[in-house]
Amino acid sequence: MSEIAERLLAGEQRALSRLITLLERGDPAAAVAMRAVDGHTGRAYTVGITGPPGAGKSTIVDQLTQLVRSTGQTVGIIAVDPTSPFSGGAILGDRIRMQRHYLDSGVFIRSVATRGQTGGLPRIVKSMVRALDAAGTDLIMVETVGVGQTELGIISVADTVLVALNPESGDAIQTLKAGVMEIADIFLVNKADREGSDQMAAAITGMLHMALVSPRWSPPVMLTTAHTGQGIEDLWGKIQDHRQDQTDSGDLEERRGRQRKREFIEAVEEVLAQRLRNKVENDPDLNATLEKVAAKETDPYSAALEYLESSLFSADWLNAP
Amino acid sequence: MSEIAERLLAGEQRALSRLITLLERGDPAAAVAMRAVDGHTGRAYTVGITGPPGAGKSTIVDQLTQLVRSTGQTVGIIAVDPTSPFSGGAILGDRIRMQRHYLDSGVFIRSVATRGQTGGLPRIVKSMVRALDAAGTDLIMVETVGVGQTELGIISVADTVLVALNPESGDAIQTLKAGVMEIADIFLVNKADREGSDQMAAAITGMLHMALVSPRWSPPVMLTTAHTGQGIEDLWGKIQDHRQDQTDSGDLEERRGRQRKREFIEAVEEVLAQRLRNKVENDPDLNATLEKVAAKETDPYSAALEYLESSLFSADWLNAP
Repeated sequence: MSEIAERLLAGEQRALSRLITLLERGDPAAAVAMRAVDGHTGRAYTVGITGPPGAGKSTIVDQLTQLVRSTGQTVGIIAVDPTSPFSGGAILGDRIRMQRHYLDSGVFIRSVATRGQTGGLPRIVKSMVRALDAAGTDLIMVETVGVGQTELGIISVADTVLVALNPESGDAIQTLKAGVMEIADIFLVNKADREGSDQMAAAITGMLHMALVSPRWSPPVMLTTAHTGQGIEDLWGKIQDHRQDQTDSGDLEERRGRQRKREFIEAVEEVLAQRLRNKVENDPDLNATLEKVAAKETDPYSAALEYLESSLFSADWLNAP
Repeated sequence: MSEIAERLLAGEQRALSRLITLLERGDPAAAVAMRAVDGHTGRAYTVGITGPPGAGKSTIVDQLTQLVRSTGQTVGIIAVDPTSPFSGGAILGDRIRMQRHYLDSGVFIRSVATRGQTGGLPRIVKSMVRALDAAGTDLIMVETVGVGQTELGIISVADTVLVALNPESGDAIQTLKAGVMEIADIFLVNKADREGSDQMAAAITGMLHMALVSPRWSPPVMLTTAHTGQGIEDLWGKIQDHRQDQTDSGDLEERRGRQRKREFIEAVEEVLAQRLRNKVENDPDLNATLEKVAAKETDPYSAALEYLESSLFSADWLNAP
């Protein structure tokens, strides 16, 4: 086993930071370490939090962190952000309030930028969750910003998905319609001290009744006021209920197996796409085809089908890194 | 040439509707027709409109449609929506106000749902734009909802990208940071009659000055009040300016060539992904690998690399539909 994998499994924080840096760089040593630690994962519990900007997701994560830390458990936080083309990094403004946890060695916080991704949750998030798990982290929270493919991708990594809305959010219905209704395990109407929170909760409950829900677990709608901490204990209790329910029924194991299969397929697609991009950079025949497409000598879709069936498309490059 | 292609090129509205239905169904006849009409495209001008929900995009499209129709030109509108899991179709609520154009035979309106897409603009949108173009449509507008990969994908189909914001939008900065700054040709602060619009316009201009902009075309920031029509003529003038500028410089041709190349690559990726999914459904060896991944006998990424290099991964299936 690689040294970094051994140190990670021993729970060394510095090994965790190092591995995540290697993952971010796409260093082959990261893949070697991930392979070594994979069999030692599965003890952590992963909670995903999504919802429109302004729903108070960071405050909820902050409060849950404080609650869980008070029981002595360790926490990992992964914040998935769109990247600013100006700062060149992930948007950290919203995370300022988490600063109080930065000095706590029982809390590990990292941001991941989605820029350049073609949709879904960046694969590195899954590796980071696994690395945190292998390092002995008890609770991992993955927070996403916005409503889109990246956010729906939270289902591919979380054991429990929280969807946070606030009573004033004009985007709430849009959010629900964008598909999060189907991925939510627990709904959360935050800023419950403001007007409209009961109506929002009732509206969500109404929509849930219209929808097909799993016969056993019907997503509860919780009211929280994250900035005062109100409702956070109940929320944490509900997360525990969901965990228990899934563990007892075997759904948790099945869910995680599904996630791993999906990750395998996505990795195959990603590697194929990467090899195709390499080919675009290096293959004169492919470039000649591209120029014909650009010049309207052939339409893009027909050209793609023809290309895949032609001798220009040698399968060799797919098999070679 | 297929009958539908001939009728489309003759400008028959019914042929256009029929072709789009065939495209939606993934009918092979659609690909045949698209191939036939491809060489006859390029006369239409395509404007993409994106921005957060509530920015008034539909109203802007509505007003631009009225303005352009008053000059006798024809208009095609493609609204790209997240799909509701409940209605099973695209969200049409926002489009109600476009109803006044539904009876105008010079206006063609279609919604496209993004559900199930893995990110980017659905490929069918590009085909629909090309079909509208071939049918002799003068102006095509593509409107997207939200901020995400789908929205950034608007760059892959539009000749001019409008980014609409409103002064009250708490999401505005988030929107700008999510990458739209780089794809905008024209910014639009809508609801300019409300407080904060001048500050918002100034903030955008400030951010533009910080960013690297193309030396010739610096994206203007326009103020509109779409529901009264104020500012719409100026906006249309600016779209014309951008068209002229790109035509004179050769940027338009280059931009369209780049879009076609990108579409080819995306089509290759899509077909490969489709064939992989077919293989998952039908190949016992691949399924055995998936079960091993699910059971943690091997980690997903290593398994993917191994699979691609193994004899299990015969290139034959990639070449066969």
